[in-house]
Amino acid sequence: MSGSVALVGAGPGDPGLITVRGLSLLRSCDALVYDRLVARELVDEAPSGALRVSREPLAQDEINALLVRLARRGLAVVRLKGGDPFLFGRGGEEALHLAAHGVDVEVVPGVSALAAVPAAAAIPVTHRGVSSQVTAVTGHGPLDLAALAATPGTLVVFMGLGRLDEIARGLVAHGRDADTPAAVIAHGTLPGQRVVRAPLGRLAAAAAGVEPPALVVVGEVASLADRLGGSRRAVAA
Amino acid sequence: MSGSVALVGAGPGDPGLITVRGLSLLRSCDALVYDRLVARELVDEAPSGALRVSREPLAQDEINALLVRLARRGLAVVRLKGGDPFLFGRGGEEALHLAAHGVDVEVVPGVSALAAVPAAAAIPVTHRGVSSQVTAVTGHGPLDLAALAATPGTLVVFMGLGRLDEIARGLVAHGRDADTPAAVIAHGTLPGQRVVRAPLGRLAAAAAGVEPPALVVVGEVASLADRLGGSRRAVAA
Repeated sequence: MSGSVALVGAGPGDPGLITVRGLSLLRSCDALVYDRLVARELVDEAPSGALRVSREPLAQDEINALLVRLARRGLAVVRLKGGDPFLFGRGGEEALHLAAHGVDVEVVPGVSALAAVPAAAAIPVTHRGVSSQVTAVTGHGPLDLAALAATPGTLVVFMGLGRLDEIARGLVAHGRDADTPAAVIAHGTLPGQRVVRAPLGRLAAAAAGVEPPALVVVGEVASLADRLGGSRRAVAA
Repeated sequence: MSGSVALVGAGPGDPGLITVRGLSLLRSCDALVYDRLVARELVDEAPSGALRVSREPLAQDEINALLVRLARRGLAVVRLKGGDPFLFGRGGEEALHLAAHGVDVEVVPGVSALAAVPAAAAIPVTHRGVSSQVTAVTGHGPLDLAALAATPGTLVVFMGLGRLDEIARGLVAHGRDADTPAAVIAHGTLPGQRVVRAPLGRLAAAAAGVEPPALVVVGEVASLADRLGGSRRAVAA
């Protein structure tokens, strides 16, 4: 009896933004291992008899080992991750570990926060004549702010709220215009979504008190929200 | 009677990768305006009585006008676009036009090809210790190949197949290592998916004869496919 693991992207927050394929696997799984930020509504979609494990207390190597163990028991395992498994989701680490241990893996991509969270704040990350390039980085780890300041188009920073002051100052110090439109979007696509829009030079002050998870968007596209109705949530639940 | 338009991302190709919310809107729409590359299975999900319009023969301003006209007839309109509406999807143009004409717009994000198509070729666009930055550009329009050659992390080029030789040569000429792992993935996530992996310096020759649509991926992450089972499709239909 041979089990398998599906690495499934849950999407950016709103449970309606999981894929049809992801929901189908979730509804037929034997075991569910889920991230902290995954919507409770999705965890509840697993069969009532399914084993449910929150990954929160586990280190990455413990998760890797758990997934192998569950699959070797013959279970159909769903590993449900926020956003997309391969875009700052560490899905590659889990997939490599599983492949190295001979466990069948299916990767079901998800809607990343990258474009979906700005969209929920009425910001298109690309727009003809405004931005034809998007650069995505994570605030966890080293950032070359000089290079990023010189990069054209839209900059999206995942998990950057804790370093927002450093990032914004660094971009301006290295030549990005302090008047560049920018935004911080916390709890994007969820009922508690909070959007702060301010020029880059004032963004950190304007976003004081905002709680993670949050996405930072820097670029001229952020100004389009004025014309797109930026105060409404663009995604309905 | 006031209609509305939902800009819905259909996902990267595989019809199972549309979102639950997107499919729900599609199944209850009065009118569907769809892109050429959207799966036939999704077009068939619209109610049998719904008006169906392929956008293929229409210019962008004609689509914009059509959407306003349909909404003003009081119809629930779904505008179904490949990938994500706001990531090289020109959804911003349509949303702005609709907003300027007083039409209610909902944006339902979709799974972009950005990470999903590489995933289907067993390539994670980010991976700890390998790449913590992703840059997405489109082959339609000017490219600063000198700047892109110096950009760390993973480069993803949408609609770049027709200029692949120019892009690859330019990146190498501006200092990117000709041995950098790279891939071209055509018809990603679909049964006809074709993956060509080769070092950047040989990519264009290796991909000769590949037909669009295709995504180009350049970066060390492309070599992970060897260990992740790159010959299999990672997304099951």
